[in-house]
Amino acid sequence: MFEKILIANRGEIALRILRACREMGIQTVAVHSTADADSMHVRLADESVCIGPASARESYLNVPAILTAATITNADAIHPGLGFLAENADFAAMVEEHGFTFIGPTPEHIRLMGDKVQAKTEARRLGLPTVPDSDGAVATVEAALEAAARIGYPVLVKAAGGGGGRGMRVALDESQLRGAFSIARSEAKAFFSNDAVYLEKYLMRPRHIEVQVLADGQGGVVHLGERDCSIQRNHQKILEEALSPALNAEQREDIGRRVTDAIREIGYRGVGTIEFLYEEGAFYFIEMNTRLQVEHPISEMVTGIDLVREQIRVAAGATLGYGQDAVRLSGHAIECRINAEHPETFLPSPGRITEYHAPGGPGVRVDSHLFSGYVVPSNYDSLVAKLIVHGNTRNECLMRLRRALGEYAVGGIETNLPLHRRLLTNRDFLDGHYDVHWLERFMAAERGEA
Amino acid sequence: MFEKILIANRGEIALRILRACREMGIQTVAVHSTADADSMHVRLADESVCIGPASARESYLNVPAILTAATITNADAIHPGLGFLAENADFAAMVEEHGFTFIGPTPEHIRLMGDKVQAKTEARRLGLPTVPDSDGAVATVEAALEAAARIGYPVLVKAAGGGGGRGMRVALDESQLRGAFSIARSEAKAFFSNDAVYLEKYLMRPRHIEVQVLADGQGGVVHLGERDCSIQRNHQKILEEALSPALNAEQREDIGRRVTDAIREIGYRGVGTIEFLYEEGAFYFIEMNTRLQVEHPISEMVTGIDLVREQIRVAAGATLGYGQDAVRLSGHAIECRINAEHPETFLPSPGRITEYHAPGGPGVRVDSHLFSGYVVPSNYDSLVAKLIVHGNTRNECLMRLRRALGEYAVGGIETNLPLHRRLLTNRDFLDGHYDVHWLERFMAAERGEA
Repeated sequence: MFEKILIANRGEIALRILRACREMGIQTVAVHSTADADSMHVRLADESVCIGPASARESYLNVPAILTAATITNADAIHPGLGFLAENADFAAMVEEHGFTFIGPTPEHIRLMGDKVQAKTEARRLGLPTVPDSDGAVATVEAALEAAARIGYPVLVKAAGGGGGRGMRVALDESQLRGAFSIARSEAKAFFSNDAVYLEKYLMRPRHIEVQVLADGQGGVVHLGERDCSIQRNHQKILEEALSPALNAEQREDIGRRVTDAIREIGYRGVGTIEFLYEEGAFYFIEMNTRLQVEHPISEMVTGIDLVREQIRVAAGATLGYGQDAVRLSGHAIECRINAEHPETFLPSPGRITEYHAPGGPGVRVDSHLFSGYVVPSNYDSLVAKLIVHGNTRNECLMRLRRALGEYAVGGIETNLPLHRRLLTNRDFLDGHYDVHWLERFMAAERGEA
Repeated sequence: MFEKILIANRGEIALRILRACREMGIQTVAVHSTADADSMHVRLADESVCIGPASARESYLNVPAILTAATITNADAIHPGLGFLAENADFAAMVEEHGFTFIGPTPEHIRLMGDKVQAKTEARRLGLPTVPDSDGAVATVEAALEAAARIGYPVLVKAAGGGGGRGMRVALDESQLRGAFSIARSEAKAFFSNDAVYLEKYLMRPRHIEVQVLADGQGGVVHLGERDCSIQRNHQKILEEALSPALNAEQREDIGRRVTDAIREIGYRGVGTIEFLYEEGAFYFIEMNTRLQVEHPISEMVTGIDLVREQIRVAAGATLGYGQDAVRLSGHAIECRINAEHPETFLPSPGRITEYHAPGGPGVRVDSHLFSGYVVPSNYDSLVAKLIVHGNTRNECLMRLRRALGEYAVGGIETNLPLHRRLLTNRDFLDGHYDVHWLERFMAAERGEA
């Protein structure tokens, strides 16, 4: 096992990884920008190294600085967390070339799944259901129109190298497609330095359902059930549940088996998430994330498996040591992402935390780097806390979540806690009747626009 | 189901009950002394009533004020919590006479188990193993000496109406017994208004192991495994584990079955704990607590059963709806009692909380009414928080507990957190090798006295 791990990240995920390391008796090195010098993961780590100024490009994305920090602290391995360099195959390769273990999949698997077009082709080859599409990038508007005619409208124009909703455009007909094509291309170019775009059938009211997998690269593969992440605003997940209220046990077992078969076939190692759209009983592969996800705790809550611990174990060469039979899915879990943002305008709300009180009691888990007196910097993602709740049934979980949201107090900044509290009073949400566009409709209705 | 419950208690246990009520959709009434007006359970309750001045005798023990509060708020039921009136049979009877449901066992069961001599006789009748004793109260020193000769030294002199270590004295020989007898009698008189004392065989290095039961009074009885509460200072539990590192599965099943058989036979309803001393493979009944225990969360963590919810359900007349087979004991849990006290002198340390940060992350539960700015009053018990940690194995649990203790920050008052942190570095404790006197020896060794 590793003696010392460098955590190449910040915020709640750095803290999450630090906690796992500490519980495994592994020393930790925190790296941080100047803006994060006083943050929780730095305070709690065994050692810390400043790797640059506030700008992520010059700190958390600064590969030479991170490798130097690993060298001078004599770390064995680097955990990339999520975001930043977590899905950068070149970084993973450089980490290994410098003699450190990259806690994640091989660079080849990261690269394969990082290209959305290639990933989909691979998914299809592996027998996973995919969305009808243009079968590769479309280079011209004419090619796009031809592909759309074949697929049938509405269609979605997507950046081949993209993610997070950027470089994505819906077109309901030919005239919309002409505009969407050029906008998507220029966005793709701007965000991902790659203007390749492709077309996909656009599902009107799908759910976002993803399957969590864990593999040791030595034949051991399990899935931890699925997560329903359909509650999204602007393609950003806001609240996730495990398991999905839309699936029955048979569907769950079927998609779980198909996914684990695929993952076993490619010899994948580490944690990963296979994301699907789901509509009217059918799954459509959208992408695979070759890293830990923000919403991983809900899978931990329903299985009792510590995904970060397992990720570290398999990166160190261990085999899983258990099979699918040992993974018992028990009860229901929901995660609320608490963002530092204005609850109506969604503009970021950085600043000093003047009051901080997290909920407690049975079935409640809080993953957060916040503390009273901490200053939320304006430079990074607005996620500041995750409230995760478990109950024996979905209804118990919802009631417990409502209770816990009522106890959560964050002062000095604005957060989306009020939005979560309002969600928990909505009948459709409580009944599990929602899709990926539901939250936008809910908010429009609240504004009196529906 | 009840619509509104009055919680006749304070501090973390009032908060614990309030959380359960809220998760069940039940309205809550907090009662409080003037010293507790600003406390968490009052802030979070739907309604609150001040029932008297700081002195517990005039507030939390003030039966007429509590019954009046229940009447004016139109409560259906009263939850006594633990301590104060929780094991007062007369109170339970009065609650029922006033038309409210008492959330606990019948007054008869409380009375039966409240008298330690009678309880032991009953335990013997029910086939539970007991400590050899004087077979009833000893009224004179001569009777005590005679009984001790029969039992064999060392013996323990105990108050018949006592608990919590008060009115208890060890005697290693005749001369010690003469002194111990009169001291125990006068303490018993002072604390419990009842000078009856009895003698018991004194076990040299027993463990304190207790079995948690839950019964619906309609034939449904389950146990939730045992708790090992041997880590005690001055007969006060400091840290508890579930399950006990001393028992094997066969012993666990055997004592569990004996206890559930006994509880079924007496037709008990509610939660209860059967406490045993355990030495060299043998159990010796000491008492039954007819209420929720401070350490109930560790049993919740290893079973997934919410004891307060179940307690409320059965009080409302529901049947359990499941049997022993449905109770799966999974993993390991430990609770640390965080007291507001000086870590060396153990003197109470009331005062204003200037900083409060509870640990989070996977497997960590905190039950506490503390918040930054809260003033811990000097009038009550020093327990201010419970840190409860679960892991898949005892070792995972210990590592996680150490991690969580390292994150816990309480400023403005002294706490016993440093003691817990030191415990977690001791090899004997980590190996599970301890008995009820172990903590005193550990602390003596720390002071250089061993």
